Amino acid sequence: MSRHTPGVLHRRLPGVSAHPGEPSDGPLTVEELQLAARNHSMPLEGLRQDTTPPGLHYLLNHFDIPFIDADHWHLRVSGAVQRSLELNLRALRRAPSISVPVTLECAGNGRSLLRPRPVSQPWVLEAVGTATWAGVPLAYLLEQAGVNENAVEVVFTGADEGLQGGVRQQYARSLPVAEALRRDIVLAYRMNGADLPPQHGYPLRLVVPGWYGMASVKWLSAIKVVTKPFEGYQQAVAYRYQQNADDAGAPVTRIRVRSLMLPPGVPDFFTRRRVLAAGPVMLTGRAWSGRAAVARVDVGIDGKWAPAHLEHPAGPFAWCAWSMPWVADPGEHELTCRAADASGAVQPLATVWNYQGMGNNVVQRIRVTVE
Amino acid sequence: MSRHTPGVLHRRLPGVSAHPGEPSDGPLTVEELQLAARNHSMPLEGLRQDTTPPGLHYLLNHFDIPFIDADHWHLRVSGAVQRSLELNLRALRRAPSISVPVTLECAGNGRSLLRPRPVSQPWVLEAVGTATWAGVPLAYLLEQAGVNENAVEVVFTGADEGLQGGVRQQYARSLPVAEALRRDIVLAYRMNGADLPPQHGYPLRLVVPGWYGMASVKWLSAIKVVTKPFEGYQQAVAYRYQQNADDAGAPVTRIRVRSLMLPPGVPDFFTRRRVLAAGPVMLTGRAWSGRAAVARVDVGIDGKWAPAHLEHPAGPFAWCAWSMPWVADPGEHELTCRAADASGAVQPLATVWNYQGMGNNVVQRIRVTVE
Repeated sequence: MSRHTPGVLHRRLPGVSAHPGEPSDGPLTVEELQLAARNHSMPLEGLRQDTTPPGLHYLLNHFDIPFIDADHWHLRVSGAVQRSLELNLRALRRAPSISVPVTLECAGNGRSLLRPRPVSQPWVLEAVGTATWAGVPLAYLLEQAGVNENAVEVVFTGADEGLQGGVRQQYARSLPVAEALRRDIVLAYRMNGADLPPQHGYPLRLVVPGWYGMASVKWLSAIKVVTKPFEGYQQAVAYRYQQNADDAGAPVTRIRVRSLMLPPGVPDFFTRRRVLAAGPVMLTGRAWSGRAAVARVDVGIDGKWAPAHLEHPAGPFAWCAWSMPWVADPGEHELTCRAADASGAVQPLATVWNYQGMGNNVVQRIRVTVE
Repeated sequence: MSRHTPGVLHRRLPGVSAHPGEPSDGPLTVEELQLAARNHSMPLEGLRQDTTPPGLHYLLNHFDIPFIDADHWHLRVSGAVQRSLELNLRALRRAPSISVPVTLECAGNGRSLLRPRPVSQPWVLEAVGTATWAGVPLAYLLEQAGVNENAVEVVFTGADEGLQGGVRQQYARSLPVAEALRRDIVLAYRMNGADLPPQHGYPLRLVVPGWYGMASVKWLSAIKVVTKPFEGYQQAVAYRYQQNADDAGAPVTRIRVRSLMLPPGVPDFFTRRRVLAAGPVMLTGRAWSGRAAVARVDVGIDGKWAPAHLEHPAGPFAWCAWSMPWVADPGEHELTCRAADASGAVQPLATVWNYQGMGNNVVQRIRVTVE
């Protein structure tokens, strides 16, 4: 038995130097572990379900979850508009509503597979989830407010607050006006038929179908129409496709095409390696893209590809189910799936590196032992 | 831009050798990261709430989450009993019911703070949650079945299946007969007033108030009364206080006393370091013990201790809220909290190591910058 001094949580793990944003060839840091413990992905067996329950849906919150008293909350719509608005939850519930099934994915999904590894939330492959979001169409509120002709963007600010990159901030993101006026963007107060859970933005969040999750601002407190491009941290610094620290980069926007397979058989607790019995098995999974409809999914068994059967998704921005029968013969196998969308985009077979570890939609590979 | 060959998920991180159960002085392994992404802890801001919503309550599932069709599910009670029983969910809902607020904590909570680090689920400090569980008292069903006089234990088997330590198994745990006949153990079909979510054991789980979470078997499919001690993997191999691999060790049972503090101020996204304004601030948190009532919580500010105010818990096995006012002066500070229970047990100031990393109830330390 050994005793150690306390405070180890604040010490780095052996040999580890952590600078957020600076890629590392070294091992995982305690800061990454803390983030992995806070923010969770969707266990892959969640792929069984059309709709992901709140507790299985992936979650990435930059700062603390605010617990908001809806009785003392309101949403303010202001800036370059004809009429500023202030609405409480009751008023929002009386407004016209829409309900949209949406697959959301974190822009950093797949980050931990990159080499060198961008040091931030260390997602593996499962930072995804699909829910039905119901609430007021953003376009309706913007029309009520009357967007001025010189407006260029709409800025969404959440109640969550903290520091990132040395900058004190409330989480905030913008959309171009034309994008904000889409008919399918939701100011959501319901998730899968219930009030939003605190961790998903209660009482109100933005949901931007087709965009990576960073656009869907939670705990929404303010909407401001602006006449110059928004330069907030989460817009101008974070969420960019950069090649190095000095590269201004391109903004991360829509979700790149991806597919995931429900790992067949049963797992080993620690390695998550799969074991299954020889014989026929139906391989299944989901595929999605924020840019165009999913056009095809191919399944690779030990490098031999065959097309999967695709089902219709619940909506244009919800994942679609796919399936392919396989007769598993004894031995070690590698299973892969690869989706393409109607824009011609296809998942890469090898990782494509970028400085922040954004949009890594490399194919998933599952090793199975067939007995 | 660099390209890498796929399959990196299956490679170890640089310099890392992972053997589950064998403690490591090395950095975190990709297997630990995979587990951290699957199983999530409760973000510490969950300490604000008496009751933890399902998606914030900690979750440790050894194998895949089974998605069970309750219409084709039943619970079987058999073994050393007068009458075997078979009950579907409707029959269970017609039986007498109780509702119990329970704080559950993973036995491995705090594992990643130990040196050398037992290599398994790499919990930091937040593998905890409190929910109200409602369902049939286990004692009622056992009385209906009639436990034979020669019975020694009751074995609970879940529908979740996989490998651990090379052993194919369904997750199963036992309780001594006398413990199983306690009046407050629940066969729960409701969590916080709703059906159990899939990840918490739908349609039915055992909840053993006061014991670490491994006793509260999810997706319960069978209860068997036995006349010899159960030797299943999760009882005889896992969840034991061992000093080395050859030590048979002592079984992990009840939750050791622990307190946690809601970190004041706001976080830095990456480091989770806290920043707050100078002036009065109310420090708050929760404390619990599965062995006796919480007797006191002391709060340490830069090593000076003072007692916190304790509130009554919602039940004998639910956490209690504590608070202590602090006038924060500018500079760097270390905040600590330390609970003691009525049995005389008190949280250790330094980690006490064991081979599996079980029951580490070392005090939490929070660094804050006051501006």
